[in-house]
Amino acid sequence: MKDSKLVAIKNMPVTKVNGFISSPLSDILSVEEPLEIRIGYGPGAARVQKNISVTMRTPGNDLELAIGFLFTEGIISSYHQVQEVCHTGMECSSQKKNIVQVELTQDFMPRLMQSDRNFYTTSSCGVCGKGSIQSIKTVSPFCHLSKPHLHLTTAILYQLPGKLRAAQSGFAATGGIHASGLFTIQGDLVLLREDVGRHNALDKLIGSALANHSLPLNQHILLLSGRASFELIQKAAMAGISIVAAIGAPSSLAVELAAEFDITLLGFFKENRFNIYTSSDSILIPTVYEN
Amino acid sequence: MKDSKLVAIKNMPVTKVNGFISSPLSDILSVEEPLEIRIGYGPGAARVQKNISVTMRTPGNDLELAIGFLFTEGIISSYHQVQEVCHTGMECSSQKKNIVQVELTQDFMPRLMQSDRNFYTTSSCGVCGKGSIQSIKTVSPFCHLSKPHLHLTTAILYQLPGKLRAAQSGFAATGGIHASGLFTIQGDLVLLREDVGRHNALDKLIGSALANHSLPLNQHILLLSGRASFELIQKAAMAGISIVAAIGAPSSLAVELAAEFDITLLGFFKENRFNIYTSSDSILIPTVYEN
Repeated sequence: MKDSKLVAIKNMPVTKVNGFISSPLSDILSVEEPLEIRIGYGPGAARVQKNISVTMRTPGNDLELAIGFLFTEGIISSYHQVQEVCHTGMECSSQKKNIVQVELTQDFMPRLMQSDRNFYTTSSCGVCGKGSIQSIKTVSPFCHLSKPHLHLTTAILYQLPGKLRAAQSGFAATGGIHASGLFTIQGDLVLLREDVGRHNALDKLIGSALANHSLPLNQHILLLSGRASFELIQKAAMAGISIVAAIGAPSSLAVELAAEFDITLLGFFKENRFNIYTSSDSILIPTVYEN
Repeated sequence: MKDSKLVAIKNMPVTKVNGFISSPLSDILSVEEPLEIRIGYGPGAARVQKNISVTMRTPGNDLELAIGFLFTEGIISSYHQVQEVCHTGMECSSQKKNIVQVELTQDFMPRLMQSDRNFYTTSSCGVCGKGSIQSIKTVSPFCHLSKPHLHLTTAILYQLPGKLRAAQSGFAATGGIHASGLFTIQGDLVLLREDVGRHNALDKLIGSALANHSLPLNQHILLLSGRASFELIQKAAMAGISIVAAIGAPSSLAVELAAEFDITLLGFFKENRFNIYTSSDSILIPTVYEN
């Protein structure tokens, strides 16, 4: 899979106002453009082409984004189901950059029920938080995986936000882009993806891991640059991630989903403090309890 | 329209780690739950029921969210097209809270083409930023409205972030919720909505204004608690908003869309500085140019 690795930025003129003084300058912005994901599936003459989604994303790692999205939405469950993935489109160069075609192998039928906006209504309870959690359990390939025994070090954890920020080329330039970073238990950054949409940054990261046959990511720490919403924990659960740390706050449903999947969820994650919202018995974070 | 005004929060147990010391405490989180929006349209026996969208939102002002969403997506263009809006669902109390049914008047046909995920592909150029901007122009009811002549005061602008934060009850409690605030040119806060999703906070605000027949909002300043993405400027354009200020960074496409709609877009908006990304000729921000 040949993917463009550059996260797109764009120089634009801006008037900077500081106090009551203006100066004409230029500013570097994160590029945002629509990406359409299409799939081809089925055998021979019965082959079907289908538009799956349009997402507003930052160009770069588009192929990873497409297959990561298909995987975290439960439409595909393995990279072996992907025959080819490439940019496509005929009408203009901008359109070509913004459409990714994923050809699935002839003998594989994608789970398309999951791809419409009624995803949450497939469970018996209908539209409620509990129903949403149950419907993810039915499609997650790593749901019943036993958790590894991991021993985290608080001192190593505190290094992660600084390491993520130092590696975030897009954020350094624009101050306005989200990141998902994957770290080893020893605190080494192994994968980083950026996007204006936090769900896209995580889909790119998971798509990369899927293409490199390194799922489940159950020996790693996922660090999110922003808040932890339900959608991000859903994607982490699909990739078998055991530990999620978010710089921002989690939502109530994110905590409930993490508990259901035995994911250790840390929030308000800074360089000298964090909150543990859920913790797995098999993952140890040594700290001293205050009386 | 009787709407619940409370933004939902939830108390959850948490272990706070500070340095190497842990303490068991409780933390207040923003609630996140799915909301399904359904519409009923068409005359008599030919009446059709349709699921339009499922969004993860913070409960509170759900009816505003539903009609704001229908309006900013171009499905309805006036509150007169809404006959009734209420919570519905039969199966469990949680489901009932999470489904809003919007009954449209019998003689009105909703513009449903806009409501699927292929929104961006309807323009001739297909999936590109320019195409996305053009497709919004075709549905915006206030696109050709002439801009009012407004004279902003820098000193008043600098007060807005503090006023927004002071009024954000949800953020004060949880530290993890977005807000959209509507201010007069004199700097008075007239409307504030909060949600874990920034697009939902803005849809709630616009839905409230629509129900109160106060659109277009072309004499106001919209302040966004986070970054300004394409989607938020799209919604602002649909509501005829002339001035958008974002605490965070804008994306490239947000700036291009603001320019196309003659919206004054301010970003990195703090209490003593901001950037002007686009400015309308009819809106004056008096500052002294540095040589």
